[in-house]
Amino acid sequence: MLERIDLAMLPAEAEAMPSEAYIVVDVLRATTTIATLFAGGMTSLIAAGRLELARHLAAAEGRLLMGEVGGLPPAGFDFGNSPVEAAAAPVAGRGGVLFTTNGTAALCLLAGRGAVFAGAAANATALAAYVAGHFRSATIVCAGNAAGARFSLEDFAAGGLLAGALSEAAPGAALGDAAALARHTPDLADLIGLSDHAAIVRGLGLAHDIDFASRLDTSAAVPMVVACGDGWARIEAVMTSAG
Amino acid sequence: MLERIDLAMLPAEAEAMPSEAYIVVDVLRATTTIATLFAGGMTSLIAAGRLELARHLAAAEGRLLMGEVGGLPPAGFDFGNSPVEAAAAPVAGRGGVLFTTNGTAALCLLAGRGAVFAGAAANATALAAYVAGHFRSATIVCAGNAAGARFSLEDFAAGGLLAGALSEAAPGAALGDAAALARHTPDLADLIGLSDHAAIVRGLGLAHDIDFASRLDTSAAVPMVVACGDGWARIEAVMTSAG
Repeated sequence: MLERIDLAMLPAEAEAMPSEAYIVVDVLRATTTIATLFAGGMTSLIAAGRLELARHLAAAEGRLLMGEVGGLPPAGFDFGNSPVEAAAAPVAGRGGVLFTTNGTAALCLLAGRGAVFAGAAANATALAAYVAGHFRSATIVCAGNAAGARFSLEDFAAGGLLAGALSEAAPGAALGDAAALARHTPDLADLIGLSDHAAIVRGLGLAHDIDFASRLDTSAAVPMVVACGDGWARIEAVMTSAG
Repeated sequence: MLERIDLAMLPAEAEAMPSEAYIVVDVLRATTTIATLFAGGMTSLIAAGRLELARHLAAAEGRLLMGEVGGLPPAGFDFGNSPVEAAAAPVAGRGGVLFTTNGTAALCLLAGRGAVFAGAAANATALAAYVAGHFRSATIVCAGNAAGARFSLEDFAAGGLLAGALSEAAPGAALGDAAALARHTPDLADLIGLSDHAAIVRGLGLAHDIDFASRLDTSAAVPMVVACGDGWARIEAVMTSAG
């Protein structure tokens, strides 16, 4: 049963935080999209940090190719990085490759130190229930901006929703400083849309993705990293619901 | 006039945040004590990160020697690292040396990138008025725990009080993500006493220092780093009030 809940403001901070489980949050939009793809029945997803690697892996394994450069899918991509698009895409029974630099780096950074999950507001309750039932300590990791060098309000806000879900699932768990701050912060879901990065996403005409990423529990998926390599992380769902 | 207010969750984050001014916050207890010493009329203070260096500098220059190891002043020290003690100590017209590892490292990290100040709840309004009047951009830097590797709630909370004071002094200034979060956070002064580090300080029998560090505007001092070297930072007050 979960005894301790921490939150890392930046990926580098998590390296100083030993934990049985890490929940990586890149809510605008990688981990929201990942939670959504598995809710839609995707069987396996490779997050790839380099564009050519993403293309290569998709072609070699017959996977759907997803991702964006500057807000648009590059040539040859099947879909973008939009959770709204992912929710409608025919992904059931398919494998996928998602091109995301920041998300991939954060997912791989902690591999080998503990179990690593992809978390968002979208799958907060389902992921929290699984983690609270299987690990004694969990650290929520904000992926951040600028390749993880800068704090991002949206990841902290979604991380706070996850901390709340973990606390509800494990009411006796102790909270570290940043997790306590997140629990103390009002209007977490609204903060996702008030972040600097949300303004950029909105400027790309993708406001609907911000609304989607701010909604709790649209997915019952528990996406876990099962393997990592140079520039990629392979993710499978521990438990999924097709809902 | 100040146009932008940012907050760095950890010292390392501030290295990615170009700014004309940096306000280092190590509220339990180094920067609270520094603000208090200058309010009492201290003429110059050297923050030293190593114990023997602190002893050497104090002896060589006839300075008062202050600091603690495990909550007590080491042999030969005149005072501890307590702001309550500093408020009553006869420091007017004297120079001092303060032994503080975390505080010294954070003060020196950003030297050369911009003006560096020591900030706390204790001198929030005075420091904010000076910074808002002299610089176009300011970044509040949380010194953190574990040699700056870990987020500390108390420095974020005091940093939030400083962000509020800066916003009042420069109402048109834009807020970065973390500064916006700090402005959004209720009950900032109370959070200082709810941090993990406050529990340690309280365990040393120093609860009165936490109460002191949580009080706004007990000092009108604006302590600025005027020189840095290997393991030390020399600080002088830009404007002081003997009050």
